[in-house]
Formats: sequence, C-alpha cells, structure tokens
Amino acid sequence: MERRRLMMGAAAALAAPALLRAAPAGAQAPASQAQAPAPLAQPPGFFRTRLGGFTITQLHDGSRTVPLQGFVRNAPIEEVQRTLAESFLPTDALRITFTAPLVETGRHLVLLDTGNGAQPAGSPVGRVAENLRAAGLDPARITHVVISHFHGDHINGLTLADGTAAYPNAEILVPEAEWRFWTDEAAASRAPEAMRPAFANAAARFRPYQGRVRQLGDGAEAVPGIRLSSAFGHTPGHSVIHVADGAEQLMYVADVTNRPELAARRPDFHIMFDMDGAAAEATRRRVFDRIAAERMRVAGFHFPFPAIGHMAKEGDGYRFVPTDWAASA
Amino acid sequence: MERRRLMMGAAAALAAPALLRAAPAGAQAPASQAQAPAPLAQPPGFFRTRLGGFTITQLHDGSRTVPLQGFVRNAPIEEVQRTLAESFLPTDALRITFTAPLVETGRHLVLLDTGNGAQPAGSPVGRVAENLRAAGLDPARITHVVISHFHGDHINGLTLADGTAAYPNAEILVPEAEWRFWTDEAAASRAPEAMRPAFANAAARFRPYQGRVRQLGDGAEAVPGIRLSSAFGHTPGHSVIHVADGAEQLMYVADVTNRPELAARRPDFHIMFDMDGAAAEATRRRVFDRIAAERMRVAGFHFPFPAIGHMAKEGDGYRFVPTDWAASA
Repeated sequence: MERRRLMMGAAAALAAPALLRAAPAGAQAPASQAQAPAPLAQPPGFFRTRLGGFTITQLHDGSRTVPLQGFVRNAPIEEVQRTLAESFLPTDALRITFTAPLVETGRHLVLLDTGNGAQPAGSPVGRVAENLRAAGLDPARITHVVISHFHGDHINGLTLADGTAAYPNAEILVPEAEWRFWTDEAAASRAPEAMRPAFANAAARFRPYQGRVRQLGDGAEAVPGIRLSSAFGHTPGHSVIHVADGAEQLMYVADVTNRPELAARRPDFHIMFDMDGAAAEATRRRVFDRIAAERMRVAGFHFPFPAIGHMAKEGDGYRFVPTDWAASA
Repeated sequence: MERRRLMMGAAAALAAPALLRAAPAGAQAPASQAQAPAPLAQPPGFFRTRLGGFTITQLHDGSRTVPLQGFVRNAPIEEVQRTLAESFLPTDALRITFTAPLVETGRHLVLLDTGNGAQPAGSPVGRVAENLRAAGLDPARITHVVISHFHGDHINGLTLADGTAAYPNAEILVPEAEWRFWTDEAAASRAPEAMRPAFANAAARFRPYQGRVRQLGDGAEAVPGIRLSSAFGHTPGHSVIHVADGAEQLMYVADVTNRPELAARRPDFHIMFDMDGAAAEATRRRVFDRIAAERMRVAGFHFPFPAIGHMAKEGDGYRFVPTDWAASA
C-alpha cells in the first residue's frame, strides 16, 4: 500500500505533458538559447554495429531540453549540477536524448521501443522514422516491435499522425505486467489526475495493432535471441531486453537510468520519471552490476547517441563507455 | 646528442610504410577479419559543434588496424592489452582512427591537419575530402591549413593524387621547428634508412604551395583566435593548436597522444611513433594537465570519432569524455 501510494505520488510529480506528448518545439529551452544562431545539421542519426551475426542499428529520435529543477527527487540541485559537471555536461538545464535500437537477426527485423512518434513541424524529437529511412530500412519490413514500458516516448512511435500503425506488418511484444497495469481500469481510476492521459494514450497507441499484441512474461523470448527481463521500478512492468547471438550479448536497458551521467554514475539518484524510486534504484544496481560483471554491451534509450557501448563499475556507480565509431561496421 | 640518438632510433622503429603512405586496403587487418561479413555503411563522418561564435566541424579520415605488438615501446604487450580492455577496446590489434578539425571563425575557414590524402580505391583512410563535401564545404573555400607536424597522415591530404594542391586558395601554416627539421639536409642524411622517405614526402606535399607556406614560432597566431603552441617529442617540431573565441577554448592536441585509451590513460606509455618518448611523455602531462585544469575542450587526431570533448584527470592519467552528440549544433 505504501509503495502504491508513493508510486502514485511520483506519477503525479511527472508533470505529464513532458512525458506524454510533444511540447511545442523549443518550449522548454532555457532562455539563454533564445538568441542562439541557426542550427547546423549533423549527418543522419543512425549508427551500426555488429553483435555476433546480428546487426544493431541505433536510431536516434532527437533530444529535448528540460529544466533541471526537480529532475532528481532526492538530492539538492547543486549536487545534481556537480554530477553533470563531472561529465562536462551543461548545468543550467538537462538535455534528454532518445535512441531506439533495431536488431537484424537475419530472420527477423526487431525494433526495441519506438520513440516519440509523429510531431508538429520543427519538433526536436520524433526522428526514428526519418533515421530508419536514412539507414535504408522500410518500416513495412519490421517484423516485431518489442516495448520496454508504456511511457509516451517509447510507445508513441507505434502510430502515425493519423493514428494508424507505423509498422503495418509487425507483431507487438509487451511486458505482461506493464500491459496489466496500463489496461487496468481500477488503476486508471485510482491514478492522480495528471497521470490519467497516460492510460488513454497507451490504449490509443496499441489500438491499430488489435490481435497482434502479445504479452511476454519475465524471461520470455520475443524471437530467437531476444528476450524480456523484468526490471520494475521506473514503471510497474518496465522491462529490459536481452539480445544475444552466441557468446555476444547486448542488454537494452530502456529507462533503467535516464542519462547515465546522472543515475548510472549515481545509482542512488531517484529520477522524477521513476514511479517507484526505491525499486528503480534496486533494479538499476542489479542490472548494471550484471552488465559490468559480464562485460556485455549495453544500449540505453536516454544514453548519449550512439547510445551503445559498455558499462564499467566505478566506485558506487557505473560509467558508460561508448562503442568505438567506425566508418563501416 | 643522447636525445638525438634516441630520436633517430625511435624513428627507425616507426616502420615507415605505416606512417608515410597507404598500406594496401586491409593489408594490416588481423586474420580474424578475413571472413568478416560485408561492411555496412555509417552516415558520413562529420560532426559539428560550436565554440563560442566559431563552428568546429570534425572531419573523419577513416581508420586503420595495426598490429599491437611493439606499439607501446616500454610496456609488455599484456599490460597494453589490459589497458585497452579497461576501455572495452579489442586486444588483438589496434584500430588507429584519424579525424581533422575544421574551424569556421566567420572570417576564415581553417583546416587543422589534412589526413592521409588520396588513396587507392577501397582504402579505409583518406576520407577527409569526401566528408568535407558531405558537410557542404568546398575545399576551394579553405583559407588556411595549419599543420601540427609532418607525419604523412597529417600532411598527405595537402595534395591530390596528381600532386597538385588540394586546397588551391589556402595559405599553409607550419611550426617553424618542424619545418627546420624536415628541410634540413644534414638531418635527412643522418636519418636511418627507413626514415628517409619521410623527408622526401614532406618536400613533395608542400611543393605545390610554394610561396604560400608560412612558418610560425611558439605562440604565434595563424589567424585571430587560432595559435600554435610547441609540444615537442612526437616529432622535433610537433605543435598543438589552440582555438579560442572569447572565454571558450579548444586545444587540438594532434599527436600528443595516439588513442587516448592508451597514452592519455597511461601517459607513461611511450608510443612507437613518438620520436623522443621521454619528451613526448613530458609534453603529454603538461598539455593534458592544462586542458583538464582549465576544463577546455580537446580534439585529438587519433581520438575516437567525433574526436572532440573534454579531458578529466583520473589518477596518474586522463580520461577523454566525448562531446554530447546532438542532431543539430
């Protein structure tokens, strides 16, 4: 009961708009950016790397700058700023970045989470679709989409702007505990006002896939080589996704941490988006301990692009080490 | 005299071909790569970031895999392998990567080093020209090229395959101590056999720029905001290039270290390409201490792409922290 109450309280603190739908472009940018020069384009945001016989393509969805105030619930902002500064990140605001992995196993084409989806023109997010095309991949070829949890930035890309399926030929695989929570009318009615749109949003995103959504329990296989593993705390059914070909392993940790420079370096930091902060912390330590100990690869939805690499244990926390970039993979 | 003798000995150990000209594509790849699958392309290898009112465009020149044996002259290979493994890099061979910065000051377009230049088809290096074009930049617009030192991977891009100037409208700025050494006929005649082609190569690369090569002393300005600073050891005139706009500073360290995972993490590692290992180590500590203390940005020719970020002091060494990638700069 205590946990449930805390979870709902945390959910209320989420300030749903940032999580559930796109803010107008630049709406949350700090004032100092108002006079910034015209943006200069980078190359397309995709990055390829091999995992045994599999190919992983990291698909950047863009990034969004949010206020730092309140982002870490259990530490003074000065301590959060010191932590960011150790990684040479700005301390006046936080850039949240979004990157979804695509796994080509040879038999299947499997997208892990979908990004923020269709957005108004000029939005800094919702770029998975264009980066998928830039990588030469057709959404109609995607055979499976595996969802880590039902926050908007992970599921909104399931649908196009008109509400139809963005991946018309894909089966959608979801954690059963997550499905249970977000389709539970009692949970919805108990939820704080600010959180209710998230229930409606989840329903809308899965609607065009009726009959093609399959629930997976802890440890269940999505396709050969790809399986879910429960990692509750961030949401009641939040799961990580383990990808393996032979001895080579990748753990896609979704939102086990937001930016690793914060809650991987400081696993004790409770992030405002974690519905159950204590459970999220315990999960974080367990998942990152395993990744570090087994020296497996790690990908994270909010890791700095290309958002794939390794995790080193360092003191009480963990350091993300990006995979070496190469002109071809 | 002792230093001169050591330097020449080190130079002989360079095994000139790797340094001076292109190896046939894949010639140095480990046997394990022989059955690798067909390579998958990444997006073009450029990356943009701001430095005050300046724009920095990092131009990837490609990478080359070389044997690890002998690469660090003063440590057993097992110790070198342990150091690489701490950064999750392969331990069977070393991938040397090449990236040259381009600085747009508003008044000038200044390239810092040039990469490996024109190559046979299929070469994994020599890509500065194509990445410059991919970034929408015309070589004819480059107003200045500042050279850190005269090793082939830094100067060979000065010329096209036919020996003419790759940057037809640029003035070339070189460290005067470096110019003195590589144009000194006495030094050339004293040099070990394996090193002599390097003297001839330097002459050939600067030939089409006759009358447009200017020598700069320690601390001299190339253009407003960009100045040389002596950093001898790697070569007799090796220099770093300091870029500043207002309070924002970038130090392009050229070859103060090869891969930072080796000689920045272990400044005591003497790299086979350093002509004077002890001087190179002292320079490394001095330059990186300043970069870390002033929290300025750092770019390095052999740093992992995008090869720009910051440097943190960590124990007796330094850790490179890449600049956060963003879809626009």
